[in-house]
Amino acid sequence: MEYDFGIVGLGVMGRNLLLNIADHGFSAVGLDLDPAKAAAFEAEATLGTTVKGTTSIEEFVASLQKPRAVMLLVPAGKAVDAALASLTPLLEPGDIVIDGGNSYFPDTDRRVLALREMNLHFFGMGISGGEKGARFGPSMMPGGDRQAYERLRPVFEAVAAKVDGEPCVTYLGNGSAGNYVKMVHNGIEYGIMQLLAETYDLLKRGLGYSDEALQQLFQSWNTTEVQSFLVEITGQILAKKDDLTGQRLVSMISDWARQKGTGKWTSQNAMDLQVPLPCVDMAVTMRDMSAYKQERILAAQQLAGVFAPTNAAENDPLFEKQLLNAFYFAMLVTYAQGLVQLRVASHTYQYDLQLAEVAKIWRGGCIIRAACLEDIRQAFATSPDLPNLLLDAAIGQDLVRRQQDLRAVVKTAIDKGIPVPGMMASLAYFDAYRSETLPTNLIQAQRDYFGAHTYERIDQPGVFHTQWN
Amino acid sequence: MEYDFGIVGLGVMGRNLLLNIADHGFSAVGLDLDPAKAAAFEAEATLGTTVKGTTSIEEFVASLQKPRAVMLLVPAGKAVDAALASLTPLLEPGDIVIDGGNSYFPDTDRRVLALREMNLHFFGMGISGGEKGARFGPSMMPGGDRQAYERLRPVFEAVAAKVDGEPCVTYLGNGSAGNYVKMVHNGIEYGIMQLLAETYDLLKRGLGYSDEALQQLFQSWNTTEVQSFLVEITGQILAKKDDLTGQRLVSMISDWARQKGTGKWTSQNAMDLQVPLPCVDMAVTMRDMSAYKQERILAAQQLAGVFAPTNAAENDPLFEKQLLNAFYFAMLVTYAQGLVQLRVASHTYQYDLQLAEVAKIWRGGCIIRAACLEDIRQAFATSPDLPNLLLDAAIGQDLVRRQQDLRAVVKTAIDKGIPVPGMMASLAYFDAYRSETLPTNLIQAQRDYFGAHTYERIDQPGVFHTQWN
Repeated sequence: MEYDFGIVGLGVMGRNLLLNIADHGFSAVGLDLDPAKAAAFEAEATLGTTVKGTTSIEEFVASLQKPRAVMLLVPAGKAVDAALASLTPLLEPGDIVIDGGNSYFPDTDRRVLALREMNLHFFGMGISGGEKGARFGPSMMPGGDRQAYERLRPVFEAVAAKVDGEPCVTYLGNGSAGNYVKMVHNGIEYGIMQLLAETYDLLKRGLGYSDEALQQLFQSWNTTEVQSFLVEITGQILAKKDDLTGQRLVSMISDWARQKGTGKWTSQNAMDLQVPLPCVDMAVTMRDMSAYKQERILAAQQLAGVFAPTNAAENDPLFEKQLLNAFYFAMLVTYAQGLVQLRVASHTYQYDLQLAEVAKIWRGGCIIRAACLEDIRQAFATSPDLPNLLLDAAIGQDLVRRQQDLRAVVKTAIDKGIPVPGMMASLAYFDAYRSETLPTNLIQAQRDYFGAHTYERIDQPGVFHTQWN
Repeated sequence: MEYDFGIVGLGVMGRNLLLNIADHGFSAVGLDLDPAKAAAFEAEATLGTTVKGTTSIEEFVASLQKPRAVMLLVPAGKAVDAALASLTPLLEPGDIVIDGGNSYFPDTDRRVLALREMNLHFFGMGISGGEKGARFGPSMMPGGDRQAYERLRPVFEAVAAKVDGEPCVTYLGNGSAGNYVKMVHNGIEYGIMQLLAETYDLLKRGLGYSDEALQQLFQSWNTTEVQSFLVEITGQILAKKDDLTGQRLVSMISDWARQKGTGKWTSQNAMDLQVPLPCVDMAVTMRDMSAYKQERILAAQQLAGVFAPTNAAENDPLFEKQLLNAFYFAMLVTYAQGLVQLRVASHTYQYDLQLAEVAKIWRGGCIIRAACLEDIRQAFATSPDLPNLLLDAAIGQDLVRRQQDLRAVVKTAIDKGIPVPGMMASLAYFDAYRSETLPTNLIQAQRDYFGAHTYERIDQPGVFHTQWN
């Protein structure tokens, strides 16, 4: 028996994706050093599919049809290098290796070169959708070796999520484009999750909403223009009761938010590219802040002051409507920032990305899928070189109409003492972007004053230095 | 003739520092490949001081008293490595090399090891104060090789700025501590410069203040609790007339703000350390935003909306007082964030920093010198392990008293459509830090929902996973 496709790493993502592949008629072999995971893969397979789980790398490689197709789904970093070190000596020229994890994109560039030396095809493909997406239809973001991708395209198109009959996978661009686009996807994911947390906090601590009222609100939002996977699951999360206490489970969860680094990488790389990405920066910052629990307990006592949240509100339909517009605005601005980063990265790293294609495959399967992505896709399909979503006439005017509500919501948060750095960052970004002149001329003057760093003038070319004092 | 001290790189910083050293009775030799710079150094020397400028590295090394003391003041990065490659073959065991530039701290760690192999002492020492500070008294931040520093301490203490008779230089800690502390200094500098730019913008565009009124305001501020070098020079900058147009010069300066990377490094490293540093993040972001001039011109037309700034105001004493408190609050929070980063970095990189000592040498000479640094020094002198300035009783209560004014100012900016991301970030940081419970429990639930990332509970230890749907 020779298998069509192999996956190394049968954790929840690898196992589910391989089960998905098997369900679509491809024979599938999985490798994991943990016998329990290899066995679980076989046990969970749909009756009538052709699968094998193994703990032997030799058996795994030998059982794959040539040229082989092997995907790695192991943690980013050293585990990928270790898997490649074990695997590549057993492979033969022409075999294809795909990294399906969240590898840091410079690592992908390095590995492409290393495997090319061995006459192996290697490309990175970001996969989003979580465990359920992997099982029943993820969004997949391949880049790099186009020829190798084309050979496997039937497999990926079969297992990907579908929107309007179109698969949520397409070749995105050169080099590490696949991992890069997935990294920015995750950055946007951080940003939107922070916005949802702020919305929840403002209603709960700021306005005294009950868990039930919160659940109803988010469930109702999922039938509006903010319809999205993250809004949907927020409603479902708020509905979940804790078996132990009978409380809503979310209220029993520690507020120390963890992270695996993709949001941080996105922000750090945006700074390297000089792309403003404040909504993601603030999301990373707030996850970091969440870890300072003991200090926050002390500070809550010492810095209490006059802004104790009220706890008296009924549902407030007017405020809910403002909040919906504020969330929509901030979410759109978060996508806008991430897409600017992709545009600049595409130029810097020569990825040759088509942003309409990126938006298209984000419409389904992935964590940031949302109704608004069809509008975003259309904006870039109409104007492939659009520098910023905010400059799309329809989207820009929509945001102009909603801005008053975002301003009102942020002001309420300020009065209540509830931190809303993500919403603030989206508003500051909007107001800065629509400022023909920013006050950064003063910064240039300061730099020239103390460091003789020189400046440029608005009325003539050249570089100037002034003896200010 | 054998000289006491040598500097490689006679740009404005190197030349001025070496002139300063010569003024204090040390004979001084400078090397620059540019004959004009070597000549300028000699020409600018005070009568009666012992100086020599040369373009010959052999002559430079031969003319230094042994064991030699050589400081590099060349641009960070490759120029430092190139200078070391030329210099070190000519040096002898026991000679000391100091990097006085803004080197990225991991580079310093690498160079310490490389020069140790050659039996050379090498340490990094951040220097702040701009050209004038270098000439008449900078703040200097040495770290690393303590023995080597002690040998040169008389030179540095002589030339450093003095506050209450104490020199603004002291040994800070191990390894790359000197460059690291200077990096965070620069990050704080970015943050405060952004806050001043926002203040200027809010008054000018938002409230229609004239340049003359702005000048008076900043000049008057420098006699209050916000007294600081950056406030002082802002008043002086606003006073300066343009020779060409007769306008205030600052208004003729391009708003594209440049950067050399130290603010970016500070933000990126804070993310690596999981230290929230939003005021610096936003300062970096706004410099990046300033480069998008052509897009901003378009966006100003397309997204104009209802928030055209008014241009009718007289001076508003009440708002000015609120603004002073808002600026003071945001400035203190910016220092607080940077000092947390130093605390965490000291632990992570084993620098063994004393934050009271850092605050002490920042009180004079450097760009971020400010009256409040004496309060900050006292806070850490009293409680060396203070986790955050906000937890100092006096500083915390002062911020609590001023918070209403920051809230009022940010709300005004929101109404006027003026971006104030730095002020917003300081307020969000304050409100988040004083939140015993943040809404990041929802983020943990979302991560567990879609990625099976697990969560912790507030009522019992362990790690949990829920089938949410």
